[in-house]
Amino acid sequence: MAATDRVKQILSWYSGDNIGVKTNLARLMNHGALAGTGKFVILPVDQGFEHGPARSFAPNPPAYDPDYHFQLAIDAGCNAYAAPLGALEASADRFVGQVPTILKLNNSDTLAKMENPCSAVTGSVKDAVRLGCAAIGYTIYPGSGARNVMYEELRELVLEAKDAGLPTIVWAYARGALSKDGETAIDVIAYAAHISCQLGAHIVKVKPPKDFLEQAEAKKVYEKQGIPTKTLAERARHVVQSCFNGKRIVIFSGGEAKGTDDVLEEVRGLAAGGAFGSIMGRNAFQRPRAEALQLLSSVMDIYRKAS
Amino acid sequence: MAATDRVKQILSWYSGDNIGVKTNLARLMNHGALAGTGKFVILPVDQGFEHGPARSFAPNPPAYDPDYHFQLAIDAGCNAYAAPLGALEASADRFVGQVPTILKLNNSDTLAKMENPCSAVTGSVKDAVRLGCAAIGYTIYPGSGARNVMYEELRELVLEAKDAGLPTIVWAYARGALSKDGETAIDVIAYAAHISCQLGAHIVKVKPPKDFLEQAEAKKVYEKQGIPTKTLAERARHVVQSCFNGKRIVIFSGGEAKGTDDVLEEVRGLAAGGAFGSIMGRNAFQRPRAEALQLLSSVMDIYRKAS
Amino acid sequence: MAATDRVKQILSWYSGDNIGVKTNLARLMNHGALAGTGKFVILPVDQGFEHGPARSFAPNPPAYDPDYHFQLAIDAGCNAYAAPLGALEASADRFVGQVPTILKLNNSDTLAKMENPCSAVTGSVKDAVRLGCAAIGYTIYPGSGARNVMYEELRELVLEAKDAGLPTIVWAYARGALSKDGETAIDVIAYAAHISCQLGAHIVKVKPPKDFLEQAEAKKVYEKQGIPTKTLAERARHVVQSCFNGKRIVIFSGGEAKGTDDVLEEVRGLAAGGAFGSIMGRNAFQRPRAEALQLLSSVMDIYRKAS
Amino acid sequence: MAATDRVKQILSWYSGDNIGVKTNLARLMNHGALAGTGKFVILPVDQGFEHGPARSFAPNPPAYDPDYHFQLAIDAGCNAYAAPLGALEASADRFVGQVPTILKLNNSDTLAKMENPCSAVTGSVKDAVRLGCAAIGYTIYPGSGARNVMYEELRELVLEAKDAGLPTIVWAYARGALSKDGETAIDVIAYAAHISCQLGAHIVKVKPPKDFLEQAEAKKVYEKQGIPTKTLAERARHVVQSCFNGKRIVIFSGGEAKGTDDVLEEVRGLAAGGAFGSIMGRNAFQRPRAEALQLLSSVMDIYRKAS
Amino acid sequence: MAATDRVKQILSWYSGDNIGVKTNLARLMNHGALAGTGKFVILPVDQGFEHGPARSFAPNPPAYDPDYHFQLAIDAGCNAYAAPLGALEASADRFVGQVPTILKLNNSDTLAKMENPCSAVTGSVKDAVRLGCAAIGYTIYPGSGARNVMYEELRELVLEAKDAGLPTIVWAYARGALSKDGETAIDVIAYAAHISCQLGAHIVKVKPPKDFLEQAEAKKVYEKQGIPTKTLAERARHVVQSCFNGKRIVIFSGGEAKGTDDVLEEVRGLAAGGAFGSIMGRNAFQRPRAEALQLLSSVMDIYRKAS
Repeated sequence: MAATDRVKQILSWYSGDNIGVKTNLARLMNHGALAGTGKFVILPVDQGFEHGPARSFAPNPPAYDPDYHFQLAIDAGCNAYAAPLGALEASADRFVGQVPTILKLNNSDTLAKMENPCSAVTGSVKDAVRLGCAAIGYTIYPGSGARNVMYEELRELVLEAKDAGLPTIVWAYARGALSKDGETAIDVIAYAAHISCQLGAHIVKVKPPKDFLEQAEAKKVYEKQGIPTKTLAERARHVVQSCFNGKRIVIFSGGEAKGTDDVLEEVRGLAAGGAFGSIMGRNAFQRPRAEALQLLSSVMDIYRKAS
Repeated sequence: MAATDRVKQILSWYSGDNIGVKTNLARLMNHGALAGTGKFVILPVDQGFEHGPARSFAPNPPAYDPDYHFQLAIDAGCNAYAAPLGALEASADRFVGQVPTILKLNNSDTLAKMENPCSAVTGSVKDAVRLGCAAIGYTIYPGSGARNVMYEELRELVLEAKDAGLPTIVWAYARGALSKDGETAIDVIAYAAHISCQLGAHIVKVKPPKDFLEQAEAKKVYEKQGIPTKTLAERARHVVQSCFNGKRIVIFSGGEAKGTDDVLEEVRGLAAGGAFGSIMGRNAFQRPRAEALQLLSSVMDIYRKAS
Repeated sequence: MAATDRVKQILSWYSGDNIGVKTNLARLMNHGALAGTGKFVILPVDQGFEHGPARSFAPNPPAYDPDYHFQLAIDAGCNAYAAPLGALEASADRFVGQVPTILKLNNSDTLAKMENPCSAVTGSVKDAVRLGCAAIGYTIYPGSGARNVMYEELRELVLEAKDAGLPTIVWAYARGALSKDGETAIDVIAYAAHISCQLGAHIVKVKPPKDFLEQAEAKKVYEKQGIPTKTLAERARHVVQSCFNGKRIVIFSGGEAKGTDDVLEEVRGLAAGGAFGSIMGRNAFQRPRAEALQLLSSVMDIYRKAS
Repeated sequence: MAATDRVKQILSWYSGDNIGVKTNLARLMNHGALAGTGKFVILPVDQGFEHGPARSFAPNPPAYDPDYHFQLAIDAGCNAYAAPLGALEASADRFVGQVPTILKLNNSDTLAKMENPCSAVTGSVKDAVRLGCAAIGYTIYPGSGARNVMYEELRELVLEAKDAGLPTIVWAYARGALSKDGETAIDVIAYAAHISCQLGAHIVKVKPPKDFLEQAEAKKVYEKQGIPTKTLAERARHVVQSCFNGKRIVIFSGGEAKGTDDVLEEVRGLAAGGAFGSIMGRNAFQRPRAEALQLLSSVMDIYRKAS
Repeated sequence: MAATDRVKQILSWYSGDNIGVKTNLARLMNHGALAGTGKFVILPVDQGFEHGPARSFAPNPPAYDPDYHFQLAIDAGCNAYAAPLGALEASADRFVGQVPTILKLNNSDTLAKMENPCSAVTGSVKDAVRLGCAAIGYTIYPGSGARNVMYEELRELVLEAKDAGLPTIVWAYARGALSKDGETAIDVIAYAAHISCQLGAHIVKVKPPKDFLEQAEAKKVYEKQGIPTKTLAERARHVVQSCFNGKRIVIFSGGEAKGTDDVLEEVRGLAAGGAFGSIMGRNAFQRPRAEALQLLSSVMDIYRKAS
């Protein structure tokens, strides 16, 4: 398709990257129901690995089948479908050329607690290339005692991915030496998102931030400078600002499954704050397919109107 | 042999793999008494390393000789014989072309306890190639504090094996931060099997699951969704479903030596639940040869009828 | 876009390739005015290198600017734009995501005659990746005393390109130990196209064959078997058949600039014979832009109707 | 299958090779209608590359499709199917596990004469591995001024193939500094076959030798020692003897298409002389399928009786 | 065995080499009927490749079998058996540890003349290592237009062989830009032997020189300095002197088959001149086995007495 002005503008922020990386960013932005708007709705399905298969798929058993998610992402008009190696490998050949894919290169299970949370690298850039992916994904846990291990691994993968013409999406989940509330505190989310940008992320994915400040030093500044954090829109805007003043793509996860109204209200807040989109897993695939398609369509409408 | 429809169907699930890998999967499925059925009975002999020679072989002293196991697997019509490096190397030349072999690439002894259980890598893909193997095998311990080490090692071996045209069989034994019952809990076994698939396993091997739920979060879901786990058939079906909705080959270990009736009853339950087969070591080679052949034949009959 | 049945059928012929290669084939087939039809119109601009700039661009001076060709390919709705390294590098960044590109990896000038014609390798797979290309291109001269050099170079590039997820388009121009007529003889063109397929070409590009037989041994067979070669449609059909019975994409060059009617009549013949499309350079860019757009549109109409 | 005594005996001659190579030799010997006899009938289809598509396939047009040959080799019960890269890649995925394949790694076209005949390398050991092949094939032209180039290329490929567990089949065609009759002279064929063995060939393929002596020095010895060369059986026996006294597998090509009686009489002569089998292309695929299956069956009967 | 003083003395000349290389030299000197004497009788069998199988083996048909030569070298008490790759590979496993072996790394056939004689590299140091060889062998043709190619190949192989702990034996046959007599002229043989030493040969093998001077410049010096060349003993002494004043092992070939008396007289002359031994192929294996053993025993007696 001809590039829209918005897509051209977004690509201009990535002028430090080679044309291959930008071509794949364009592939993501030019696909699906939001093509050309610069907005994103991505379907991520790594919950089987992260939480176990029954917790993830029993609410909607067809979702045990990796083909289900591919078809859902295609039919819903998502910009991309993200999954770990095994699931992509099992299904990608049947959906060649129908939806851009993102290979999640690290994953963590919940069979045992880790003192210093850290995901295992479960795929490679070489896998992403042979599977025809448009990007790689990688999770960091800012706040973890093992965060530097992850930052360094990420740095190497970003570099390797660039050589293969692939952009990198960073899942930034603060955890470890933080209070439970702190994991989604606005200062922490903004900080984690900024670190991701500094590490070379082309797209940053964080949880919707709460109106809470975790870090004492930060709290002083937020209060002194009067940074507004009351509404989700304000907080989303602050996170986006923290990502190179809006010059990196920032998208938000949907989190645990919840009611349709709650989902849409949250998305409205994010969109109002300038979010580039949502990455919505459980709220999509744990619903019956028709409901999921309806919900994703509504989410896309919100972002389209905000574009 | 001409490929049966079932073999073709199973191979279609591995469309993300190169033809070399699929050719070796076909070698496994087209050999032995179950050739063409898509069912498997594999003879694994790594117990000498895992439990010591006397515990493994004294009940049937001819089994001290690695040739014994090769001949047993051939005469019984097993799909394959799996063993660590030394044993394969000692005997493979005398049995060239008579039974597909699987090189187990990591092993763990029981001379000392490990806080974070982890096997040592004891062979290489290069060894598997020069020994003419049809697959590699690797053990992970989901639940161990060292699980990420194993996941990452496995990931690299899977990639290297693919380059050599070899599929990977993952032995998934949950242990570590789990109760004793939890190691064979249905939620844990299903989870461990799913992780194996996501890591790129072509064939997953787990223990027969018990009617027990280890994880509190999982327990809620199993109860809410009414996932049936009373019978072994139900549990086997759930494990198979957890492996990409049945699109990965899942086989079950026989575990400790037990009476013939117990073995066959267990196999009947597994087969009824859609298990792709059994991998049966001690229950085979610790019996006198004639009895072992009889038992394996009965096990194969059960799977053949279920195909 | 959702894959059409025709695109899925064509992709099924490339089942020996990895998903990355197939994804890029799909990119080519899902772009432009012929998206989804399995037909191709590609704009190639390497004539500046092959014939010199004035011979190539003076008839339409805006064509001296590589941006001109990118925009022409985009506005005309071509499936792809093919060019040597320098021209792609000069312009690709301004057109990211707007049209798939093909990096021509070898080129030959006409400043001196060569006894054994052979192009120079002027780009690399690595260049194609960093420029975000969807394919590489390579020219062979079957009939040349240096053909084995080219076949071997091609073989290495095909393998390297596959590892980068890129398909290969082979320009097969017979020349060397052939009569002038022999270069476009139907037996020679069919043979050159077949060789390209055997060397691993995903797409083959040849000149429209003439009703002439060059090789004495071949002539006997064509006459004995009554292979029809009178009409261009018959000859195109024979070339397509010679490419794995139609299971490789075969496209035809437009050759020297000529009148619109001549171009369209030739395309009608090719389309009637089952050609997968045309690759049209001079007949496009040597016309004024408006005329070129009109011509390309008419060509696409012909292929669309034939699909 | 259990190895027959004959297969075990033949494998014993390859004791210098690793078990992977021997396993693939066993795959070839344990497949098809001649499984276990130590005899071979192989279908080779590289004539499209060597002579052009029309000369090769027009007599039986379904043969334009590479799938045709795979199915023919399977249905006829051939030990293997040999082809260049493109044809294997186009079809192998649809026939996984149904017939061993041999990747011909070099090929030569007939679009131009070469002063020093030499084939181009058109595939790699890496390709053979990813395509699941059981062996590689390579052609040498003893007598050519470029023979050392080929011997050295072969030597490297043999070594690389061994590392991948693959045996090598050498097509030994004397040409170059020889009279036309000399190309199939008994002294030359025996010499070319012996050279192949010394270069590491596991299987040697030559043309049926004629009762003619090319080399003056050799002629003296044949006459002095009274080496019998009158009948084809005698000549075949001499060639087999020249290959390490019968300790290398020697098979014979069928050559140009001819009548059924002529083919069978030739095969009877070869079989009587201890030939290990035939590699029969044009005489198989240029016949209608039913006739080809009948002919191959008759050929196999002759070898089976001779085993 | 304990090293004799003579063996220690010879090893002291190779003090620039690593202990691995010297250990293998000692293996050669401490094996067989001449063990400990510093004298050598080696059985070389590459004539099948060099002259064709019938010319080589028809006079004594059991010699078609590579096993025959191994057994002959063992039973005769030769220091080593030298052969090309294929023959060693075919038999070495059956004779492990019974006689040191030398892998001849290049060979030349006589199916076509070469303007610039040059052998093809037909084996590798890696092969020599995996076959358990004690040395590699390589042929140079000083006097050939391609000699520098050979010198450079040799240099690389010598270096690679040293890294593997293997000494190198150079077959130095002058041919090319020389008169027929010149190929065995004393000045030429001495020169070729010296070049071999300079190229890093541990053992040099030349033909017995004739009383003829080829090179005009050399002739002047031989005459002026009164270098005695009348008797074979004088000429052998001159060749040995030309090899670092006797500090390299120089052995002589037997050449064409001839009568027993002629062979022994030649050997007596060589031995009297300080030759380190003989390498005797056709004169050994073209005789009936009993005669060959008798002849080799007589040859060894002569060298033993000279030690």
